[in-house]
Amino acid sequence: MSKGYNRRLLIFALGGLGEIGKNMYCVQYGNDIVVIDAGLMFPEEEMLGIDMVIPDISYLEEHKDKVRGILLTHGHEDHIGALPYVLKRVNVPVFGTKLTLGLVEAKLREAGILNQTKRVLIHPKSEIRLGVFRATFFRTNHSIPDSVGICLETPEGIVVHTGDFKFDQTPVGGQVADLAKMAEIGERGVLALMSDSTNAERPGYTGSERLVGEAILDVFHKAKQRIVVATFASNIHRIQQVIDAAAAVGRKVTIVGRSMINVVQTAIDLGYLKVPPGMLVEPDEINKLPAHKVVILSTGSQGEPMSALTLMARSAHKKIDILPGDTVIIAATPIPGNERFVGRTVDQLFRLGAEVVYHAAGTHPGVHVSGHGSQEELKLMLNLIKPKYFIPIHGEYRMLRMHAKLAEQVGIPPENIFVLDNGDTVEIAGGKARYGPKIPAGNVLIDGLGVGDVGNIVLRDRKVLSQDGILVVVVTLSKQDGKILSGPDIISRGFVYVRESEKLFEEANRIVTQTLTKCIEANIQDWSTLKNNVRDALGRYLYDMTRRRPMILPIIMEV
Amino acid sequence: MSKGYNRRLLIFALGGLGEIGKNMYCVQYGNDIVVIDAGLMFPEEEMLGIDMVIPDISYLEEHKDKVRGILLTHGHEDHIGALPYVLKRVNVPVFGTKLTLGLVEAKLREAGILNQTKRVLIHPKSEIRLGVFRATFFRTNHSIPDSVGICLETPEGIVVHTGDFKFDQTPVGGQVADLAKMAEIGERGVLALMSDSTNAERPGYTGSERLVGEAILDVFHKAKQRIVVATFASNIHRIQQVIDAAAAVGRKVTIVGRSMINVVQTAIDLGYLKVPPGMLVEPDEINKLPAHKVVILSTGSQGEPMSALTLMARSAHKKIDILPGDTVIIAATPIPGNERFVGRTVDQLFRLGAEVVYHAAGTHPGVHVSGHGSQEELKLMLNLIKPKYFIPIHGEYRMLRMHAKLAEQVGIPPENIFVLDNGDTVEIAGGKARYGPKIPAGNVLIDGLGVGDVGNIVLRDRKVLSQDGILVVVVTLSKQDGKILSGPDIISRGFVYVRESEKLFEEANRIVTQTLTKCIEANIQDWSTLKNNVRDALGRYLYDMTRRRPMILPIIMEV
Repeated sequence: MSKGYNRRLLIFALGGLGEIGKNMYCVQYGNDIVVIDAGLMFPEEEMLGIDMVIPDISYLEEHKDKVRGILLTHGHEDHIGALPYVLKRVNVPVFGTKLTLGLVEAKLREAGILNQTKRVLIHPKSEIRLGVFRATFFRTNHSIPDSVGICLETPEGIVVHTGDFKFDQTPVGGQVADLAKMAEIGERGVLALMSDSTNAERPGYTGSERLVGEAILDVFHKAKQRIVVATFASNIHRIQQVIDAAAAVGRKVTIVGRSMINVVQTAIDLGYLKVPPGMLVEPDEINKLPAHKVVILSTGSQGEPMSALTLMARSAHKKIDILPGDTVIIAATPIPGNERFVGRTVDQLFRLGAEVVYHAAGTHPGVHVSGHGSQEELKLMLNLIKPKYFIPIHGEYRMLRMHAKLAEQVGIPPENIFVLDNGDTVEIAGGKARYGPKIPAGNVLIDGLGVGDVGNIVLRDRKVLSQDGILVVVVTLSKQDGKILSGPDIISRGFVYVRESEKLFEEANRIVTQTLTKCIEANIQDWSTLKNNVRDALGRYLYDMTRRRPMILPIIMEV
Repeated sequence: MSKGYNRRLLIFALGGLGEIGKNMYCVQYGNDIVVIDAGLMFPEEEMLGIDMVIPDISYLEEHKDKVRGILLTHGHEDHIGALPYVLKRVNVPVFGTKLTLGLVEAKLREAGILNQTKRVLIHPKSEIRLGVFRATFFRTNHSIPDSVGICLETPEGIVVHTGDFKFDQTPVGGQVADLAKMAEIGERGVLALMSDSTNAERPGYTGSERLVGEAILDVFHKAKQRIVVATFASNIHRIQQVIDAAAAVGRKVTIVGRSMINVVQTAIDLGYLKVPPGMLVEPDEINKLPAHKVVILSTGSQGEPMSALTLMARSAHKKIDILPGDTVIIAATPIPGNERFVGRTVDQLFRLGAEVVYHAAGTHPGVHVSGHGSQEELKLMLNLIKPKYFIPIHGEYRMLRMHAKLAEQVGIPPENIFVLDNGDTVEIAGGKARYGPKIPAGNVLIDGLGVGDVGNIVLRDRKVLSQDGILVVVVTLSKQDGKILSGPDIISRGFVYVRESEKLFEEANRIVTQTLTKCIEANIQDWSTLKNNVRDALGRYLYDMTRRRPMILPIIMEV
């Protein structure tokens, strides 16, 4: 590597650009790399059977000796969820605030790598040296406490990474974003800003989390029987407001859903959640309490199939039944793609006779606000930090584009704005930025215990199987004369009701036998030709008869 | 059937309740049945490989001789799409307005049953006798012209069916809903109202279609190069406004996408679309025109994978390329479930350098309004018709529930409101309504040419296959001594990358051989036991190693 290569700053993402999820941003100068966040992404619809997606970190593995550490902005899964996988390959120190590290530790313990991982606690006044870099932090507001932005001093100048943020002027817990520190960083002169683009399409300001508390309390006052509140487990501020509302109306709270139980416990242990003594009760105990004394805090606000709320809605929860007159608040908005699941849960709850308060404007506005700033807040951030160069991050491509437009509106010249894809680099040397070399980036798919063992071929097969099923054609041939000894047998799965399609299968069998016999008579010994002929003849027949294209798997045995 | 059975009115739905789609409502008195609409539904996510869903009409087939006809409220697919299937089984006259019948005829011609179907043209002043029933109609506003509501005089009193409606005070085309006729029907006294619940969750009023025209013209004025407008093919009023806007700014229009071409042609032929002479040009010709003289009217507003806009966005359209500086207007809102597809199309268009105007509030408000009335309009309808009994129709369960609440707000007693599922009946005799007997209702799935040959077992198999794939285990046994002659061979699809999992398959093979050998030694001759043992042993091993549960298909051949 040339000397010139060392004297430049590289900024790039291994995840988080052109997508919502698997956030992982890198800043490199010579032999020092700092990583910001290591998140996972939930699979897209076409990733059939996949559990989650993490960034391809082959670049970091290749430059393992240069990676100085991973700085974490906050404890959401799309920022910390890939850590167990990343740290197994690149074992470097992890830096995070108290709650963030608390959530990370649970995760590392489960993965069996807690002890071998160096964890460094930071707070908004910390100052960290990482090779040539110096990192400081500023408090932000987001839908999880203890979120920070990062100010990274580099040999080329200051690079600021906002993390996920909104400006909440009346935050729950009372800690407003550190506007003074952001302004001060801005005054010092910032080379480049990387800023959260999630809500770049939304005009105006995002509402304060406190509004949600007011809306919830309002519903609590009117509810006559049990109350169920479903929300994101990590939204500690919202959970605090549910607990406060319960206290205000004299109800006890029980918690259901594994992730909710875990996060609440962590938050209580670390002092992020204040629960009056005697307030929490076990799910087993609530049946002993009168209905108007009960609040059930639950997972399932996205209609996830196995979550507590979904089970309750399906009358399949072991401990809790929804009864007519109960009130259910879904304090969340469906994430794009989840609308139907949430809708179905709401339908089922209505069928059980519950009053349901959910995202539809017609029910009760204000039981959810976003954790990400809208257009005016994004402009405010740009005006506070006043960067020379701007890199919108954390969003689908259209969101990055909209964010770029906002940056232009506040006066950043278009040529100083870099809308990147994962793996694109911005190279800054002598104060001048330009597009640099591409770096490998991509998706690593996790399916069960397998990390990266499912790729395009497997997914393509799953897609075909999911649409029209499979037909297996088995035949046993004689080693001596190549004659058919047994079969052909045709077995299908996911194709048609076999019982109602006897004629179809009889004719299919005839076609396969005929095709095989012809091949044998023509003395075709090459099995792949044999199989292709069977596949073609059978496929054509089935398509003509059904307009379906099942996978056809010919298997030849020889005895 | 007793005499008593004959002297009562039955109201029920074979489709459209608890769902958006496959609308089909029935009114029966004794030996006379009138059917209102016969729509299709697009498949839910878990209906893998299914093309569309139609109502189970076994009740109508059973009472074929009683069905007097099918009244159509308007020409949308969720109201007419099942006609070809229904008419093949129950060949009765079809009644519809001019545009509706025009769209139906294209459909019946394609299905080869146009000539054998009696079609009766109606207009808002028509009066139709159908057995004991007399049907009249009233004009409504909806996102397709020529929509009507139905007033059905029955021996028990008047039953009103609204069809899909909104109240548009400034409709395109100038035909306001017939408020006077609705009021007059209301004054005569209405026994039961069936009313559209699609937007029962939305407060306020739905905007006028005219607002969309204004927004589109606004964008047209600013556009510098080509303009692409994607919208629903059937929204003739919106298409008219696009054509008017093109005329206003001196651009020619070309039309792409099969359904858009078909519907526009039908609408022009029938006089529903006014196009200035020389305005329409063929797609081949637009490359000869300057960019600022071109408007492309296209399908694909829902991001449908093979639609014209999606192909353009993927640079895969045969005739049209999107160039930097082009303007694309997506004049539609994503239907729940389509958000990701639309988002992806928008992303791709941005990547091509287009300006994209789409549903996100941050771009340009008002390029879409709904065709369904919001809460205030639903209440207005209730107050005009003033029914004794109310049956909310056309919506997911939560929408029906919300609509029921609105009805309570305008003074209908809760006991007079019937929130039904498909197949539930309301029975009215002597002016008294109550829940009647259940009638068979359900989904018939259409997959390729197959109508109803894919059911739960096939779908369950497709689901398993889509998640973890399949392993086929083949072995040939000797007829004489039951010994293994060939195999076991294991072939997998959609499970793992085979090349990277050699050891896994070696061990799997060993386990299968061992299991088989044990069975053979224990003299187990029952093949289903043999297969189950293989399935269990292999399934357990694979789950331990991968946490996946592929389908395992053991096949035993005997020679």
